[in-house]
Amino acid sequence: MGKQSVFNPGLEGVIAGETEISYLDTDAEEIVIKGYDLMELTEQKTYVDLVHLLLHHKLPNKLERTEIESALKYNQDLPQEIYNILSSIPTTTHPMDALRTGISALAGYDPELNDQSVAANTSKALRLIARIPNIVVNSYRLLHQQKSISPNQQMSYSENFLYMLTEKEPSKHETAIFDQTLMLYSEHEMPNSTFSARVIASTNSDIYGAFTGAVASLKGNLHGGANEAVMHMLLHGETKTGFSNLIYEKLNKKEKIMGFGHRVYKKKIDPRAALLKNALFSLSEKRGKQDLFEMCEIGENLMREEKGLYPNLDYYAAPIYYLLGIPIDLYTPIFFAARSVGLSAHVIEQHANNRLYRPRVHYTGPRHLHP
Amino acid sequence: MGKQSVFNPGLEGVIAGETEISYLDTDAEEIVIKGYDLMELTEQKTYVDLVHLLLHHKLPNKLERTEIESALKYNQDLPQEIYNILSSIPTTTHPMDALRTGISALAGYDPELNDQSVAANTSKALRLIARIPNIVVNSYRLLHQQKSISPNQQMSYSENFLYMLTEKEPSKHETAIFDQTLMLYSEHEMPNSTFSARVIASTNSDIYGAFTGAVASLKGNLHGGANEAVMHMLLHGETKTGFSNLIYEKLNKKEKIMGFGHRVYKKKIDPRAALLKNALFSLSEKRGKQDLFEMCEIGENLMREEKGLYPNLDYYAAPIYYLLGIPIDLYTPIFFAARSVGLSAHVIEQHANNRLYRPRVHYTGPRHLHP
Ligand SMILES: CC(C)(COP(=O)(O)OP(=O)(O)OC[C@H]1O[C@@H](n2cnc3c(N)ncnc32)[C@H](O)[C@@H]1OP(=O)(O)O)[C@@H](O)C(=O)NCCC(=O)NCCS
Ligand SMILES: CC(C)(COP(=O)(O)OP(=O)(O)OC[C@H]1O[C@@H](n2cnc3c(N)ncnc32)[C@H](O)[C@@H]1OP(=O)(O)O)[C@@H](O)C(=O)NCCC(=O)NCCS
Repeated sequence: MGKQSVFNPGLEGVIAGETEISYLDTDAEEIVIKGYDLMELTEQKTYVDLVHLLLHHKLPNKLERTEIESALKYNQDLPQEIYNILSSIPTTTHPMDALRTGISALAGYDPELNDQSVAANTSKALRLIARIPNIVVNSYRLLHQQKSISPNQQMSYSENFLYMLTEKEPSKHETAIFDQTLMLYSEHEMPNSTFSARVIASTNSDIYGAFTGAVASLKGNLHGGANEAVMHMLLHGETKTGFSNLIYEKLNKKEKIMGFGHRVYKKKIDPRAALLKNALFSLSEKRGKQDLFEMCEIGENLMREEKGLYPNLDYYAAPIYYLLGIPIDLYTPIFFAARSVGLSAHVIEQHANNRLYRPRVHYTGPRHLHP
Repeated sequence: MGKQSVFNPGLEGVIAGETEISYLDTDAEEIVIKGYDLMELTEQKTYVDLVHLLLHHKLPNKLERTEIESALKYNQDLPQEIYNILSSIPTTTHPMDALRTGISALAGYDPELNDQSVAANTSKALRLIARIPNIVVNSYRLLHQQKSISPNQQMSYSENFLYMLTEKEPSKHETAIFDQTLMLYSEHEMPNSTFSARVIASTNSDIYGAFTGAVASLKGNLHGGANEAVMHMLLHGETKTGFSNLIYEKLNKKEKIMGFGHRVYKKKIDPRAALLKNALFSLSEKRGKQDLFEMCEIGENLMREEKGLYPNLDYYAAPIYYLLGIPIDLYTPIFFAARSVGLSAHVIEQHANNRLYRPRVHYTGPRHLHP
């Protein structure tokens, strides 16, 4: 019925925006972030450097790095009412829904809420990036009738986040691996949650609204929710044989295997998964828990042989978080916390050069009925 | 950089989905809802009939109408904790943000949250449609330190909604006009908020998440937020001359005039605006307040002559809500409440025949940098 009668379901392959932020160059097998290769950044820099790169368009020098570290520390506390709200919601609430409610409620406290300029958006983004780990951890704790935990001001951003997640002071090695997962989760062109955030921001709505929409999107198991599903599958499989049997069973039932496949990489490996596979190997060696690594590798080989499908980032992030001692329900909220910097960059870019998203449809229903 | 190098900013004219729900046939100047013309429905049926049509794919017979009326009444109460949460957020919170927080928090109470089947989605939708007027009104009241107000079980859906909004028993004529505005706001193909909801739902995320994203989208002044902006403009103009001067001033400053223009109708009148213009005329006559009607008409003529632009629905909805005695901050939340049925239909349809939304980008940033 529309003037354009063909369409690509899920907007597959459709260009939905212009961006200077990132690009998946599948030919070169490179995830480009502001001109850099994300793999190189992950091997040589830290998450906070990436925050600076994405919000201030350059990697920080020493002074800038100190400044952004302090700004993140300075902004991490939450108003007391947010704790009250997180204590009021039912204990059956999914942690992603608690996070969404927390971010939504926080909007009312931001003095710059209605200023959509680059400067105001950048400071709102910094406040959100500083606070989200706190909401993630404490919403989970309050839902589980545990006492809230305060950030440790002496620790770096990632060290503190991991400390709050596990209530243990992490080792340097653990912090480094956790930081790498945050970097790899930080930004990835135009996945569903980033697209949701940009679509919402394009009505001139604010960054808190864009973020609540993105949390909702990331919760779905075709997107961020996959990392939790992977871990449940590994635990359910229990042993190497158990795990392969489980995958075969699911394939026979035509079920999707979580942690495999990707709209853009299709039948290539997600470069982020390859890097995290190494991280998992090193972590499992240190722990004497090679079993988990081997189960994952068996699953990877099996899926490649049976389906020609490769693991995505979530497949290897899940067992890493497990070995780090993080509760499974928090894997997707951590993904969101890490992605908050990429989302920020996209909201800022959308507002700076806006055009309302408003597509059309192909109508397949009846016509000419009368009441 | 992408394989497809041209793109339409804001996905203008791009078909982003197939739907049996609705279609804007601009050639025939018809808003098609499940085969019916929305204008005919609005003149002959009520909002609750439309809820039945959109959720159950047919207009209700007498029995079905009684059933859906009772189901809506039965489900309108909120858990006490939702009132507590709405009392905890800062009084500076925008009512749309309060509504978003309320809907987000409500997710944890729904026993069918994780069931995305048509049956479960339909009952979740009904619960949401029943409760949203209650959240809209009471979040506003609690933000303004007023006592919460309970729904009146003796009244019809729209009568009760208007009663709660104004704390006065509305006349038949007032209820009828208010009901018409709800019908005209109920569903409109693929505007930004509906698109946001479908994009989010396509990750397999649930209807509460899709709704929070849609509230966030509708808040923006390029979308639902326009109705409040229109009313502020009318009040600021004060008189007919004042109002035309204000419009001229804004046009000289190259500002957009809220309540005019539409991505799809372009340079034609929004048929919904034409119908509400009549409703406004009849309401202002009854009130002896023709001034407001005349101001609107002057603005309409001026914009047509100066810019060739026509009013959209928000332009005439705003003064109607004003004459009905509804606080201005609640106009956009009412728009959302009315649209919740259309959003429900879209989320149900998306889940029933899903494909993940994941488009690509055109990358315009630097390449080949090294850390
Ligand atoms: C990510 C994902 C949604 C991409 O989806 P998409 O671009 O829509 O890909 P499709 O669903 O069209 O997949 C193409 C084919 O591979 C199959 N396939 C894709 N992912 C699969 C998986 N994880 N397990 C089994 N089969 C899969 C599809 O069934 C389809 O087969 P068909 O052509 O015989 O119908 C999809 O791969 C998936 O659901 N993966 C599991 C969830 C996940 O890990 N998500 C995290 C992504 S970072
Ligand atoms: C609704 C709206 C976002 C549609 O936007 P769009 O499809 O992106 O349309 P454009 O912004 O490209 O408009 C086309 C031209 O009309 C002008 N225009 C559109 N709406 C205008 C308005 N309300 N006031 C003044 N000029 C307007 C634009 O400036 C543009 O002019 P140009 O070609 O000289 O640059 C837009 O009309 C608008 O912002 N309206 C005001 C907000 C509103 O009422 N929203 C409620 C919609 S239901």
